[in-house]
Amino acid sequence: MPLILGLSGSLREGSHNTSLLRAAATALPPGVELRLYEGLREIPPYDSDRDVEPADPAVERLREAIASADGVLIATPEYNGSIPGVLKNALDWASRPFPDNAFRGKPVAVIGASTGLFGAVWAQAETRKVLGVVGADVIDQELPVGLADTAFADDGQLLDAEQRAALAGLVGVLTARTGAGQPEAPPTAEAVASL
Amino acid sequence: MPLILGLSGSLREGSHNTSLLRAAATALPPGVELRLYEGLREIPPYDSDRDVEPADPAVERLREAIASADGVLIATPEYNGSIPGVLKNALDWASRPFPDNAFRGKPVAVIGASTGLFGAVWAQAETRKVLGVVGADVIDQELPVGLADTAFADDGQLLDAEQRAALAGLVGVLTARTGAGQPEAPPTAEAVASL
Repeated sequence: MPLILGLSGSLREGSHNTSLLRAAATALPPGVELRLYEGLREIPPYDSDRDVEPADPAVERLREAIASADGVLIATPEYNGSIPGVLKNALDWASRPFPDNAFRGKPVAVIGASTGLFGAVWAQAETRKVLGVVGADVIDQELPVGLADTAFADDGQLLDAEQRAALAGLVGVLTARTGAGQPEAPPTAEAVASL
Repeated sequence: MPLILGLSGSLREGSHNTSLLRAAATALPPGVELRLYEGLREIPPYDSDRDVEPADPAVERLREAIASADGVLIATPEYNGSIPGVLKNALDWASRPFPDNAFRGKPVAVIGASTGLFGAVWAQAETRKVLGVVGADVIDQELPVGLADTAFADDGQLLDAEQRAALAGLVGVLTARTGAGQPEAPPTAEAVASL
């Protein structure tokens, strides 16, 4: 069964970004599973003096989880206009050894929630930039969920129908990119004519 | 005596960015001291559930070091095109509580070294952006030291005369901004005419 690894950039118990990954899990195409990664808290601060093989067990576990997934979905909050240090530190470890790291060529999408209006768009953009440098196959789309305190229904779904559709669309693109889902149909004559 | 706190974004023993801070310490105006901060390794991963008063002792120590300095000089490497997670995590903690954090209104300059050609310019730019969001008084200049493996002389000084001058200029601007150094002279008629 195709597997998407879900990484939340927030360690908070009631994290809106973890909630967003849970909502994404229910929006996946049939037969695709999303597994939430737990363990970013245990990742040590990156230090190239300690960047040896094998690395710290928490780092090895993260690398193996990324390597064994068909794709990765990252949900990130925005701290001070950029990626949370916790998430960036995890990506720094996952990027090593370079270039043959676990992210190399791996399909990755980035989504984000914030309690402000803008839905962590700066953090998402910087995370995509970083993932591109790391060598991942980055989906060039964002999904900003603003006002996250009131964005989710009691059943965990996004309240806004447009956002629900956008989330389903984005995880569909991610799944297709893994090669595990339904291949995208070639454009029909009509679709081409309308370009 | 005016005090500049030096923060290195690299934990590595032989870090080029720590070397750059040591070179900066010798380029300061007379009577100004640079103190290297040690202790970023002990800062825990940011978690808003644990963002309480008092915070973890390592966080309290960082906040007090920033608060009691007249200015801060950050030297950052570039990891995967952006700020090292370790440094960003420290800034995330230092930004709290917002807006009355230790960085508020504090003069801060950012410099950076990398073994590549570009001298960590992306990491410096993102660090300045983050510090602006945090509320610091950010000096809008960069000092990129590329090819850092061969940039320093045995006595710790930068080999390149232009880079030495630029570093002295930048720490001079930082010192002036703290109000602790010589105030900048108003422009002369000639300087104004040449604008």
